Amino acid sequence: MAVFTQVSSAQAQVLMDRLQLGTVTDFRGITAGIENTNYFVSTERGDYVLTIFERLSFEQLPFYLRLMKHLAGRGIPVPDPQADEAGEILHRVQGKPAAVVNKLRGGHQLAPDLFHCDQVGAMLARMHLAGRDFPLSQPNLRGLAWWTETVPVVLPYLAPEQAELLSSELAFQQQLAASQSHAELPRGPIHADLFRDNVMFEGLPGREQLSGFFDFYFAGVDTFLFDLAVCLNDWCIDLASGRLDEARAQAFVQAYERERPLSGTEHRLMPALMRAAALRFWVSRLWDYHLPREASLLKPHDPTHFERVLRERLAHAWHALAPQER
Amino acid sequence: MAVFTQVSSAQAQVLMDRLQLGTVTDFRGITAGIENTNYFVSTERGDYVLTIFERLSFEQLPFYLRLMKHLAGRGIPVPDPQADEAGEILHRVQGKPAAVVNKLRGGHQLAPDLFHCDQVGAMLARMHLAGRDFPLSQPNLRGLAWWTETVPVVLPYLAPEQAELLSSELAFQQQLAASQSHAELPRGPIHADLFRDNVMFEGLPGREQLSGFFDFYFAGVDTFLFDLAVCLNDWCIDLASGRLDEARAQAFVQAYERERPLSGTEHRLMPALMRAAALRFWVSRLWDYHLPREASLLKPHDPTHFERVLRERLAHAWHALAPQER
Repeated sequence: MAVFTQVSSAQAQVLMDRLQLGTVTDFRGITAGIENTNYFVSTERGDYVLTIFERLSFEQLPFYLRLMKHLAGRGIPVPDPQADEAGEILHRVQGKPAAVVNKLRGGHQLAPDLFHCDQVGAMLARMHLAGRDFPLSQPNLRGLAWWTETVPVVLPYLAPEQAELLSSELAFQQQLAASQSHAELPRGPIHADLFRDNVMFEGLPGREQLSGFFDFYFAGVDTFLFDLAVCLNDWCIDLASGRLDEARAQAFVQAYERERPLSGTEHRLMPALMRAAALRFWVSRLWDYHLPREASLLKPHDPTHFERVLRERLAHAWHALAPQER
Repeated sequence: MAVFTQVSSAQAQVLMDRLQLGTVTDFRGITAGIENTNYFVSTERGDYVLTIFERLSFEQLPFYLRLMKHLAGRGIPVPDPQADEAGEILHRVQGKPAAVVNKLRGGHQLAPDLFHCDQVGAMLARMHLAGRDFPLSQPNLRGLAWWTETVPVVLPYLAPEQAELLSSELAFQQQLAASQSHAELPRGPIHADLFRDNVMFEGLPGREQLSGFFDFYFAGVDTFLFDLAVCLNDWCIDLASGRLDEARAQAFVQAYERERPLSGTEHRLMPALMRAAALRFWVSRLWDYHLPREASLLKPHDPTHFERVLRERLAHAWHALAPQER
């Protein structure tokens, strides 16, 4: 979003002093991001991002910030919230909650190939393993209960065949979530929104190395398979058609399984969770599109993209090859 | 709620004709209920309740109405939605969704003793067993995800020690819900709101027989133990202090276990789920009290009742005696 909260470099310096991060040498607002106000802050110590939270409250933020700190401490390349002398990582700027994290290097890879998918898949599994002993817990707030409440609100805006698709997919996912198979899926903290623009790579073209995952503000405890499915639906599809690129998808899953082998149930439910992941973003984009929040300055994403993705997942159920089939 | 949608007896007759329920002989609005418009409709065939749904949509209602029909078909005394010749149980009155159910006989038992608790406990278990093969599924929409979103919204209205209690209890419940023990709890459709005023008894004082459970519009798939905990927190407490009446609670659970024995995990998690059940209603009452919806004509319930109930559950964790301990 554009900058909602105007912060002066002097105010930033006060916070950087508290965090013992040195003298501000560069300070500028960032227009990317849809939920928060972000500033790049450079000091002689390094490059940081100052985030002023516009949607999340002081009560909600510890889960996200401490998860990032936990993962960073386990060597997962994620923004590391900077602590003051008392160890506090959630700060206050102009009365609003704020955090300072190290700035990830590199840029987005918006046309990923097998090489990028391999790296993201492996790091996703490492992140899941590293998060298993994270002591806080919060449900995925954009999960089944939210879909169930939101679908009836957006249905009146849809054409009959869209409404039918959305309703029947929701019913399928409700059944799935109540099943014993679903209860068996391994769970833990997941990113839940790990799209191409939430991952950084650095290095020369053809030799880029993954340099970080960021934007954890939709994270929650849910099935690891859902996180994988969100990634497959973004990293491993043709964006124009929504069609799965099976080579990239297979590379992504194989790399994931190098770090954390999937159970038989996870392999079996992969098509169903890819449908769930498409539904989740179709619902939220319909919501953003038809019921924009007053304060939003952003043009909402086109909801029909995830409608296409869902139709593709329904038309072509895809299972990764299990290790014994490769 | 007061009557929101004015329906004439002629309009009611049109619907009763479609349902082949006879000629309307009496028709009157009911001022009880907080979510819907209700009318009593008598015909020569029987006594019915016509409900016009003001909050729930055509997409959401099939779960509730079909659950009631399913349970009624299994001999559980619940309102049975009346079908037209095509088998449809969800109707339309003045463009709004509507249903007609048989009117339960009897009245509320607002000062329950062991005898009433025994009957409700046993019927609750029978309802859980009867619901296990119900084919539709919908999550409990007033579950953990909703508490997590709502607690930060109500916190600013609370005194510091209340805010601390609410936040720490939410954190405890988030941990619990992510635990393996919680995943083991048996699940299925639950009523989730089975308070004293949602149960009917008929018969002479001292010899009342349970004649029905009603108001299923907060039902969803969740743990059976949560449903039991909601009941214990209402049927088996002293309303003034929130204190548990252990004799009534033991009678309630023993009766439940005659029909469906609890697992060891269910016995073990009973105190934690009684806290969850107190939290659920504390949060919703805080929400209703501090952020009343525009259309509400009702004086909201006092939220401090469930604060007291939660404090009592924290101060005195209670386990039912397991069968081998009795």
